[in-house]
Amino acid sequence: MSVQVKPTYEPLNELTVLDVVKPLDFFDASEQNQLHVREIGDGNLNLVFHIESALSKKAVIVKQALPYAKVVGESWPLTLDRARIESEALIKEAESVPHLVPKVLYSDSTLAVTVMEDLSDHVILRKGLIEGQIYPKLASDIGTFAAKTAFYSSDFYLHPFEKKEQVKRFSNPELCKITEDLVFTDPFFNIETNDFPAELQSEVDVIWNDTELLKEVAQLRLSFLTKAEVLLHGDLHSGSIFVKGDSTKVIDPEFAFYGPAGFDIAHFIANLALNHLSQNAHAKEPFHRETLQTYLLETIEKTWKTYRETFTALWNEKATDPFAKIDGVLENFLEKTFQEAIGFAGCEIIRRTIGLAHVADLDSIPKKEVELFYKKTALELGVKLIKNQRKLTNITELTDWIRGA
Amino acid sequence: MSVQVKPTYEPLNELTVLDVVKPLDFFDASEQNQLHVREIGDGNLNLVFHIESALSKKAVIVKQALPYAKVVGESWPLTLDRARIESEALIKEAESVPHLVPKVLYSDSTLAVTVMEDLSDHVILRKGLIEGQIYPKLASDIGTFAAKTAFYSSDFYLHPFEKKEQVKRFSNPELCKITEDLVFTDPFFNIETNDFPAELQSEVDVIWNDTELLKEVAQLRLSFLTKAEVLLHGDLHSGSIFVKGDSTKVIDPEFAFYGPAGFDIAHFIANLALNHLSQNAHAKEPFHRETLQTYLLETIEKTWKTYRETFTALWNEKATDPFAKIDGVLENFLEKTFQEAIGFAGCEIIRRTIGLAHVADLDSIPKKEVELFYKKTALELGVKLIKNQRKLTNITELTDWIRGA
Repeated sequence: MSVQVKPTYEPLNELTVLDVVKPLDFFDASEQNQLHVREIGDGNLNLVFHIESALSKKAVIVKQALPYAKVVGESWPLTLDRARIESEALIKEAESVPHLVPKVLYSDSTLAVTVMEDLSDHVILRKGLIEGQIYPKLASDIGTFAAKTAFYSSDFYLHPFEKKEQVKRFSNPELCKITEDLVFTDPFFNIETNDFPAELQSEVDVIWNDTELLKEVAQLRLSFLTKAEVLLHGDLHSGSIFVKGDSTKVIDPEFAFYGPAGFDIAHFIANLALNHLSQNAHAKEPFHRETLQTYLLETIEKTWKTYRETFTALWNEKATDPFAKIDGVLENFLEKTFQEAIGFAGCEIIRRTIGLAHVADLDSIPKKEVELFYKKTALELGVKLIKNQRKLTNITELTDWIRGA
Repeated sequence: MSVQVKPTYEPLNELTVLDVVKPLDFFDASEQNQLHVREIGDGNLNLVFHIESALSKKAVIVKQALPYAKVVGESWPLTLDRARIESEALIKEAESVPHLVPKVLYSDSTLAVTVMEDLSDHVILRKGLIEGQIYPKLASDIGTFAAKTAFYSSDFYLHPFEKKEQVKRFSNPELCKITEDLVFTDPFFNIETNDFPAELQSEVDVIWNDTELLKEVAQLRLSFLTKAEVLLHGDLHSGSIFVKGDSTKVIDPEFAFYGPAGFDIAHFIANLALNHLSQNAHAKEPFHRETLQTYLLETIEKTWKTYRETFTALWNEKATDPFAKIDGVLENFLEKTFQEAIGFAGCEIIRRTIGLAHVADLDSIPKKEVELFYKKTALELGVKLIKNQRKLTNITELTDWIRGA
């Protein structure tokens, strides 16, 4: 009697990772013994191996989830299932936007491994933006990414059996709990893991005691927890986007889940708004600052415009929903999505300023008093967005507010 | 080598059903050979066996799902998984309202069988109401049922891991599709399965062409499809409730799923409203009619009042949501739930009047012209509720409208 021995999970190293890659026939036989392996991850959540042929210079990435997360020195267990979610989300996204995500070559849920296209010629968008780079295709790419992944996963397009199957498949309790806590809960209460300079205490106290604000946040949080509208990336900030000239690649969808349609685009816009604020300190001279800030606001406007137009075109061509042809149904959905996105963006701006996980855009401002000034401004903007979400009907009202912040 | 033979599904009959019941030790050994079996189901969706001891008169019900549904003469396949959903929902409901549901003695998902408490001394509420009976505990029982099952299954109480596990467990695609079609879609379009007298065609045409109305229905339908707020019974009309004097039992939760909090209570209220209308024809004399109609409106008011008070008490005592103590968060949730319930009730009233599945309350009105008159009135009421859902803030405004209809 033969017994099939199943592999068990073990963290890979620079030798064992080759056992995963070699059988894939990605590298020619002649190259298999001349592969150069580097571990390039930050070691907090995942191992990331870059494997390159010394001969052809072809390369792949092997990403393996670790069974724990390290944050602020502490380590807590974290599901390996996020590797399955990530690879399945990448594959699902590639069905509608293959040019905007890294290609998956192989995945193994036991080893919590995804082998994918090497994008190390790209840079992380956040870094590029802080350095003052401009990416002309960014807005249309992210607007397209968010609109297509949303529409094709929604009840407007999928048969309800398929939709409900996808909702179960992308049920992502552990990573959603991180968002629930870090984005929607902790920053709004006096929780130890919040992280802000003592000089902001009075501004933070105002937030913690603003009942009108907290009521709105509670509503946004409930929407995050309950509204399974579309498959989301779940963490679409500028650290989850690789860019190189005209190429945009959305990476790391381990937070993917079914949630409210405005969520992804909100996080992207919020992070552009934070970069916009921080350029007052980063940009080296006024003309460049003005160019950059104009670009950032145009990118926000064009992202939403692309989302709206792409979603509308798909709706008109492909919606299976019997109400799709009724006047106003699409507009109603887009308006609610837009307004809720404004609220989500406000939460993201606040949590990136006073919560556990910050953004380099603000934190790398060299002078302390300048950093404090723009962090206060960020908090004011975040509060304004959350409180006024349902008053906004046009994206230029939003960019006016960001410009005026 | 021994092989475990698993039973496969087969429809039970009056003999084989005893193989399910006898091992349960519900009946004493002395009774086992003196059991009287009757099949009492309507044969459309399920077999229902009543098994009684000739000696002690103790009895149980064995309900078995059939692998098809018969509606208007046609037969289509229907998942047996609904038997699992039904028994698991009954058991889950019994955790918070054990006195309001039949006790489950045994269930078997392979045979699609649930063995439960015999309630044949009760009558179906719809029948009792049509006959002019009054049930003083009905409002507080149904308000309590809906509030407790909602609160204890919600994100306000459950840990998000447990909540998300329950959402998957009660994913109910096939039965939700029936509701999606019969309640939220077909009655609003010219679909063959709709069923209404030709004399109503002009009123129906007005509905089919009322863009403002259809926009609202599209929104309610989307909410039904996407908002996983609480575990619902899913079909809480007056045909799913057994009554006897002060005893209320909610039965048949095979449509159970996670959905918007206002859904169950909406269906209950809508069916009381339809009975209220129909009493203009059924009640034998004016004084009795007035008594009955006053009772029905008071029941609607008291059901919502009980829901609100019960939910509020649970929230204050047991909510784990960190925003639960913020002023206005509960009130905001209850207001949205109430307003959406008004909209859902409007859909239920319309679909019970012109859709595939009617209610005896209206259909059993003896005189054709009287029936037509009250069906037109029902349609007007349904449309009014859907269009004005967000204008209502108080249950007495609703009962005023029903009274005035």
